Amino acid sequence: MPHDKTFGLDCPLPVGERKQVLLAHGGGGRLMHDLLDRCILPAFANPQLAARHDGAVLTAGNVRLAFTTDSYVVRPLFFPGGDIGTLAVNGAINDLAMCGARPAFLSAGLILEEGLPLDVLERIIGSMRRCALAAGVEVVTGDTKVVDKGKGDGVFINTAGIGVIEHGFTIAPASVRAGDAILLSGDLGRHGIAVMAAREGLEFESALESDCAPLAAPVLALLEAGLDVHCMRDLTRGGLATALVEIAEAAGVHLAVEEERIAVPESVCGACEILGFDPLYLANEGRFIVLLPGPQSGRALEILRRHQVSAGAAPIGQVAPGPAKMVTLGTRIGARRILDMLSGEQLPRIC
Amino acid sequence: MPHDKTFGLDCPLPVGERKQVLLAHGGGGRLMHDLLDRCILPAFANPQLAARHDGAVLTAGNVRLAFTTDSYVVRPLFFPGGDIGTLAVNGAINDLAMCGARPAFLSAGLILEEGLPLDVLERIIGSMRRCALAAGVEVVTGDTKVVDKGKGDGVFINTAGIGVIEHGFTIAPASVRAGDAILLSGDLGRHGIAVMAAREGLEFESALESDCAPLAAPVLALLEAGLDVHCMRDLTRGGLATALVEIAEAAGVHLAVEEERIAVPESVCGACEILGFDPLYLANEGRFIVLLPGPQSGRALEILRRHQVSAGAAPIGQVAPGPAKMVTLGTRIGARRILDMLSGEQLPRIC
Repeated sequence: MPHDKTFGLDCPLPVGERKQVLLAHGGGGRLMHDLLDRCILPAFANPQLAARHDGAVLTAGNVRLAFTTDSYVVRPLFFPGGDIGTLAVNGAINDLAMCGARPAFLSAGLILEEGLPLDVLERIIGSMRRCALAAGVEVVTGDTKVVDKGKGDGVFINTAGIGVIEHGFTIAPASVRAGDAILLSGDLGRHGIAVMAAREGLEFESALESDCAPLAAPVLALLEAGLDVHCMRDLTRGGLATALVEIAEAAGVHLAVEEERIAVPESVCGACEILGFDPLYLANEGRFIVLLPGPQSGRALEILRRHQVSAGAAPIGQVAPGPAKMVTLGTRIGARRILDMLSGEQLPRIC
Repeated sequence: MPHDKTFGLDCPLPVGERKQVLLAHGGGGRLMHDLLDRCILPAFANPQLAARHDGAVLTAGNVRLAFTTDSYVVRPLFFPGGDIGTLAVNGAINDLAMCGARPAFLSAGLILEEGLPLDVLERIIGSMRRCALAAGVEVVTGDTKVVDKGKGDGVFINTAGIGVIEHGFTIAPASVRAGDAILLSGDLGRHGIAVMAAREGLEFESALESDCAPLAAPVLALLEAGLDVHCMRDLTRGGLATALVEIAEAAGVHLAVEEERIAVPESVCGACEILGFDPLYLANEGRFIVLLPGPQSGRALEILRRHQVSAGAAPIGQVAPGPAKMVTLGTRIGARRILDMLSGEQLPRIC
């Protein structure tokens, strides 16, 4: 996510009541954007950061590369459908895929808390290994640090990734055009609810598993088919709503999406009703949106639906006339409301 | 450092008394090597990891790249001569330089503890910015996470780096040959003692500053001069002794070094005497060794001494006849003793 592809500052900050870091600063929402907008872009000004994409697109010699990083601090370490190791590998793969790159190489940096049982570490490394093998990426370099008991939380993992870009497209908000269709690759909210349930020890009627999965295969299939992919984004912290707002703001367009087209599993709906969450803001780890010319959406859906991870792909809206830098949602009851980012996150430490 | 370029496992571990992660597992010494040797290489087996170098050397298209990562957990965050931000940027630059690469792009992943004063974050980001500008590298992608108060320690930073390799050499232990000279770029121990003094609130007669600095300029100058650089290593966790043992073991050679050739500032010696540390194992953040054919050592020293960061370069020994995979030190009193790795680290969380 572009919003969390940077940090802070060297410049006046949202001060006053916010002179300390809050959990919400890590939530992917408006507070994090504030921090980044005011302070990071000025501190490390360069075109890659300014592009506000899921990763940086670089040129080395005659090769175009994507480069991305994320740290994982999910709590608990293990949850239905995955663990911090599957997140760390698939997350890097997905950020590279969102740049239209073929994921190739990963680094892994572990920060371990003194006293962590070694069998926990073994399970996590095993997960990383399996995910890397499954996706055909290599973990080529790494680092291990240990911090005193009480100064960490079991395991934090950073992965950085390098992917190779084999096409000539510029996949970024700047490429989005009027008339583009917005496709969503599947249903929403499984990861967020699965982690929350594991954390709080909740049980729901039907067991929910995280959607954590690699997205490179369907993305590369779209590109190989020659479709004019304008922009993509995976729907992690902040969920679908935040991703849409980010694109609308960066591209200066109006995005109109329809609630009835957005699939949410019944069990996610049920959990959201009980807990007061909005599924549009729940984190996913195996879902993305793609924006491309409207006339190509049929072909794109056909390709996406061939891949299990995006079998539930559906058109959910389009770049439409309307106020720029804004997202509107047509609701089931026929109203139209503005979608904005949350201030923080509904669920901290979700990835 | 190759020893910390990986993690753990999926395999039998040094169990028994060690079923939990110890601080010493992060120290860069024998315990960490045990963890990596038994478990990481098997888990992520590939030639890049097997090369046990400071970073991975990769090929993308027709370009050779170096790729490296390190997490920084130094305590305290600020110390004489630097802070966690200068370490994070210079550390990545130095690992790339040790691969003979021109550092180009960095990622930065921040893990912030809730409650961190924002002005502390500002200072650190300012340091990162200054170091990146000074070295001509760009921070092109990043990530920010926040963890609950008491689940972190202010700030942890991960940097990953990409460098471009513009020469045809294979710079790695495997290239080390009999007769190679071992050059050390400067005096030892400043970083370790500076951090320790800041942590413990100690004051020494003469103020010691960390040697934290970027090493790319002298390294690239050696390569541009056409010298046959066989291997390099920066002397971070575990210090000179550990770096030498790593190279001797990986290259299957005997390294003989002479104590009287190894410069240690008087103030470091004094601190070591009081505190019971051995300067050969102290961490440095702006020192490296280079191994290259003996006849080229005069020219190499001349080049190194032109750069302020390596103005104190000196020949300290050579690849000599003797038991393979072993390092011996000729002492000032004329004896010869074996240098081995420590089990852990004299000072945890030094970087």
